[in-house]
Amino acid sequence: MAEQLKILLDESEMPTRWYNVIPDLPEPPPPPLHPGTHEPVGPDDLAPLFPMDLILQEVSGESFIDIPEEVQQVYRMWRPSPLYRARGLEKALGTPAKLYYKYEGVSPVGSHKPNTAVPQAFYNARQGVRKLTTETGAGQWGSAMAFACQIFGLECEVWQVRSSYDSKPYRKTMMEVYGATLHPSPSDLTQSGRDLLALDPDSPGSLGIAISEAVEVAVADEDTKYCLGSVLNHVLMHQTIIGEEALLQLAKVGDSADVVIGCTGGGSNFAGLSFPFIRENLAGRGNAVIRGVEPAACPSLTRGTYRYDFGDMAGFTPLLKMHTLGHDFVPDPIHAGGLRYHGMSPLVSHIYELGLMEAVAKPQNESFAAGVQFARTEGIIPGPEPTHALAEMISEAKRCTESGEAKTIVTILSGHGLLDLSSYESYLTGEVPDYDYPQEKVDAAMARVPQVAG
Amino acid sequence: MAEQLKILLDESEMPTRWYNVIPDLPEPPPPPLHPGTHEPVGPDDLAPLFPMDLILQEVSGESFIDIPEEVQQVYRMWRPSPLYRARGLEKALGTPAKLYYKYEGVSPVGSHKPNTAVPQAFYNARQGVRKLTTETGAGQWGSAMAFACQIFGLECEVWQVRSSYDSKPYRKTMMEVYGATLHPSPSDLTQSGRDLLALDPDSPGSLGIAISEAVEVAVADEDTKYCLGSVLNHVLMHQTIIGEEALLQLAKVGDSADVVIGCTGGGSNFAGLSFPFIRENLAGRGNAVIRGVEPAACPSLTRGTYRYDFGDMAGFTPLLKMHTLGHDFVPDPIHAGGLRYHGMSPLVSHIYELGLMEAVAKPQNESFAAGVQFARTEGIIPGPEPTHALAEMISEAKRCTESGEAKTIVTILSGHGLLDLSSYESYLTGEVPDYDYPQEKVDAAMARVPQVAG
Repeated sequence: MAEQLKILLDESEMPTRWYNVIPDLPEPPPPPLHPGTHEPVGPDDLAPLFPMDLILQEVSGESFIDIPEEVQQVYRMWRPSPLYRARGLEKALGTPAKLYYKYEGVSPVGSHKPNTAVPQAFYNARQGVRKLTTETGAGQWGSAMAFACQIFGLECEVWQVRSSYDSKPYRKTMMEVYGATLHPSPSDLTQSGRDLLALDPDSPGSLGIAISEAVEVAVADEDTKYCLGSVLNHVLMHQTIIGEEALLQLAKVGDSADVVIGCTGGGSNFAGLSFPFIRENLAGRGNAVIRGVEPAACPSLTRGTYRYDFGDMAGFTPLLKMHTLGHDFVPDPIHAGGLRYHGMSPLVSHIYELGLMEAVAKPQNESFAAGVQFARTEGIIPGPEPTHALAEMISEAKRCTESGEAKTIVTILSGHGLLDLSSYESYLTGEVPDYDYPQEKVDAAMARVPQVAG
Repeated sequence: MAEQLKILLDESEMPTRWYNVIPDLPEPPPPPLHPGTHEPVGPDDLAPLFPMDLILQEVSGESFIDIPEEVQQVYRMWRPSPLYRARGLEKALGTPAKLYYKYEGVSPVGSHKPNTAVPQAFYNARQGVRKLTTETGAGQWGSAMAFACQIFGLECEVWQVRSSYDSKPYRKTMMEVYGATLHPSPSDLTQSGRDLLALDPDSPGSLGIAISEAVEVAVADEDTKYCLGSVLNHVLMHQTIIGEEALLQLAKVGDSADVVIGCTGGGSNFAGLSFPFIRENLAGRGNAVIRGVEPAACPSLTRGTYRYDFGDMAGFTPLLKMHTLGHDFVPDPIHAGGLRYHGMSPLVSHIYELGLMEAVAKPQNESFAAGVQFARTEGIIPGPEPTHALAEMISEAKRCTESGEAKTIVTILSGHGLLDLSSYESYLTGEVPDYDYPQEKVDAAMARVPQVAG
């Protein structure tokens, strides 16, 4: 009898509710603050940016929220996604550990991002919005949003961080095939872009800058709203379908997780996998170690300061209490591994502060090496982002080899790397130096972050 | 109740036998001939190139051949592949037709090619072969072979057509991630490459040239063999798992095919889907129209001559009776849509001559337009090759709209286009002119093809 490699669910077994972790936490996360008054923002403050359904989800006290039928219908194009047992990698490592990965690269755009792009487009379309603006770095979020907007008949305008826009032309074409309009950021289409270009005409851009541009355009037009691919509560909640499916899939093979590992940039794929496991832990039904893995070159959780900061460079967004490297952070151009946002999701930051999860940082050469080993043993070339989680899974599996423990380790392969092969090329030719983001730069950046009581 | 979009099979429902169409045909296909003697080649003639298991499959009279357990195990990484109902495209077309597509882009390398790369690597490894050589055009076959060789511990050396090697660096990196060694073809590593470079130092290369180089290296080394990604009987047979699954999947939803459509280059994805349907037709259990679709720029079936010709440019291979544009065919550089081989598989050619299938040619702009419409309605960006089949499916669906017929049309989406986005970029910017390969060039090429009785 053959070993089962894929643990699948029927379409009929797909979860029909998203999970909101907030009501289950021992204390609620600190609220976002108005950038001018420093008072907590209310739903009306967010209305120029988001449709009311998403604002209500952002502040919801319900533990579960029904997934609209129209969204479920789109999810079923690729969901439920497979949970794989990584037999090839286990064998190569000679580990007693059982390694599983939840594979989100099966979505049409090749990552987990459509899990939230689709409901965001749906709720906006239902409210009569005509156009959505957003930012994107490597382009995974932008292509997910372009895909989702096409489905619900929305226009989509994307500001892509210039360094990625120039170096990853395939992502740009992908967004155009889906009908989106692209701009490199900083652009001369917005005041914030023009201001920045005046200071630095050759700016490589950053997510913080691109957010400022997309927000500026959205608030200037009644029919246009903005959307974000990570960080916010409702975005993370949409991703929890990943962890809900994984729990069902592990139960199918009579297994349960000892360690749950995900990479962290803004926090959305990590939260999507881990929040349902955190619920099981809090309810006494599980006992899994929950571990985020970030790049050493952008270490918001392990080296950032936990304080209120802006979500964007220009300071248009509410102040968010989060682990931050400073809202004017610009990633080092030699960093090829994605996960480049200056802050960690406030909800993930809060959960980290509560001690409900761990965090580690991995250098990019170790991460790419894990990606290549994974490709050669499991067949799938991982996106550069989840290679960080794979590097930690491999470290944990090696610890199991030493200790003899047969732990069950579950990670999320948030996307494939087929549109990031230029990063692999740089790695294979020895052109991705390791870079430890220095504490001094974090400390210096903090002087430029507004002081907020609390 | 939601409409079912994906028709899935359990791993346990995966077919465990490949189908060999030859015994069911009213007459056998003409044999390959020795390039020197023009006598039919026997198994021993092929032994320098292929392991005996594959040679025996090439000439087998059995209707079904068991898939080795080791191969099934690898297949289960992505198989059974989904059959999708294209509801989004149906709606956009307003057609009464039911449109299905069998999606092979779920394999780790994103195409149907591993269905044969995996057994080819397996049988070679079992016979003690150390290294495999092969050719590749756009790189789908080369990456499948690199993936498969890695699994079974074989070295893999690939000659890639230079024009693709230069314009598609992501495919090159993909093969390197899987551990293969790449050379642009023509190369100075072989006599045939050097001879060609002496005539034309700037040659863009062709599959026929790359085959000559890979064959030359394989025959010169006892431990090295050669493998081919299409054309040959055993290659097409390995792909029949696609059609066998599709028959089971259609039966699951109580449907049966009226029209079966696949794109044809060498013929392997077309044969993989259609041969099981041809069996059903011949047995009186089905009545589907079987239709191959080729690019107007490389129209071997619709414009080529049916005669014996070489499989490669240098004339190292056996003479194969097939529809051919001439073994010295070099595709026009403006042709972006894949499917660039000068000949059609002898078995597909024979079946075409028997009247068991139809063939049409599609220009590349209509094909890319179909690809973009498909991406915007079904979410998946198709490889340039299957856009030809999609263009014909759309034509057929429009004919159904006119006639009011609710035909069931089944096609194969042989791969995604994520590594071919530069071709889409050329299309979106209006840079892919249509090109009808002229009959005069075919006729002129025939004068350079050896005369063979029969």
